[in-house]
Amino acid sequence: MICPRLELALVHYPVLNRRGESIGSAITNLDLHDIARASRTFGVHRYWVISPFAEQRHMAEEILDHWRQGYGAQSNPDRGEALNLVQVCGSVHEAVAGMNAALEGKRTTVVATCARNGRENLSYSSMRTRLWQGEAFLVLLGTGWGLAPEILDEADAVLPPILGYGSYNHLSVRSAAAIILDRLMGSVNNCPDGAAG
Amino acid sequence: MICPRLELALVHYPVLNRRGESIGSAITNLDLHDIARASRTFGVHRYWVISPFAEQRHMAEEILDHWRQGYGAQSNPDRGEALNLVQVCGSVHEAVAGMNAALEGKRTTVVATCARNGRENLSYSSMRTRLWQGEAFLVLLGTGWGLAPEILDEADAVLPPILGYGSYNHLSVRSAAAIILDRLMGSVNNCPDGAAG
Repeated sequence: MICPRLELALVHYPVLNRRGESIGSAITNLDLHDIARASRTFGVHRYWVISPFAEQRHMAEEILDHWRQGYGAQSNPDRGEALNLVQVCGSVHEAVAGMNAALEGKRTTVVATCARNGRENLSYSSMRTRLWQGEAFLVLLGTGWGLAPEILDEADAVLPPILGYGSYNHLSVRSAAAIILDRLMGSVNNCPDGAAG
Repeated sequence: MICPRLELALVHYPVLNRRGESIGSAITNLDLHDIARASRTFGVHRYWVISPFAEQRHMAEEILDHWRQGYGAQSNPDRGEALNLVQVCGSVHEAVAGMNAALEGKRTTVVATCARNGRENLSYSSMRTRLWQGEAFLVLLGTGWGLAPEILDEADAVLPPILGYGSYNHLSVRSAAAIILDRLMGSVNNCPDGAAG
């Protein structure tokens, strides 16, 4: 049986701010925790946290140490198990190179995500099929107001935006990550409908 | 066309702690924001935040005021639009009664969620069909280590746990809420597969 090789990267630079300018955003504690827990649940191999700012990377490493080997590791070992997936690095290129180095000759397909329509060229169902056929994928998630255009241009493919009901489209990156992982890796665990309702 | 009537409730009492004891948990700022944003994206009618503690409810109302009519309303009006869905109340019974009062003669079906197998009797696909046929639903989400057994007993139905790949099953309630809403209300927006990969 094939073990799908999916990695995630949370990008803090280059991303857009609300005025559409390219910026570096701040790493937040909760993005580390929530996305690591979802990554562990859905079988993600590694969760890259990308910032070009050394002080931001240092802060992230201090948080990780608390849960991996500090007091948090004893009080809540499940959390350390999820945060063990996190790898902090300085750029998208570094994450891609790091993933490819571990693939031993194979190359990962780099897939960007975007909350706006118009750039998508890979459906969730095709990507799910290709993952389970053995292709390796790295999914890039943007913080702030989303990935900068050059990241979308450089990626091998772009997934469709997650749309709900109506035109409001302001999911947190944590919610978007959870939904994307469920669509790509979730078990379809239906159950016999009982006496409900 | 039928407009689905789905409401969510985030329950802070009675829920379990890590030792399986029934407790009241604390309202957190990020549960308000992330689940309100997902609720607004997926067409949820109202997002109930339930705590029996008056001081906790007061704190939640102060946060909501900032984004609905304070400085936050000017700096980020999209956030206020999401947080307008939040209704703070004291008990699950109060939320059910409040929803039923607004349904004018109809009664909502109350659906609990649980991260463990064994209680599920309503599949996501059936619930999605029934929602789009016009049945009203209230979905209860537990904080802490999940809804207390008496809430599962009293509910009309229980949805299956969200399972990933392997046995690790510690999603945040924010991630679980996003996935449940996508399964029930998300658009299946596939796209033609292009030159990718």
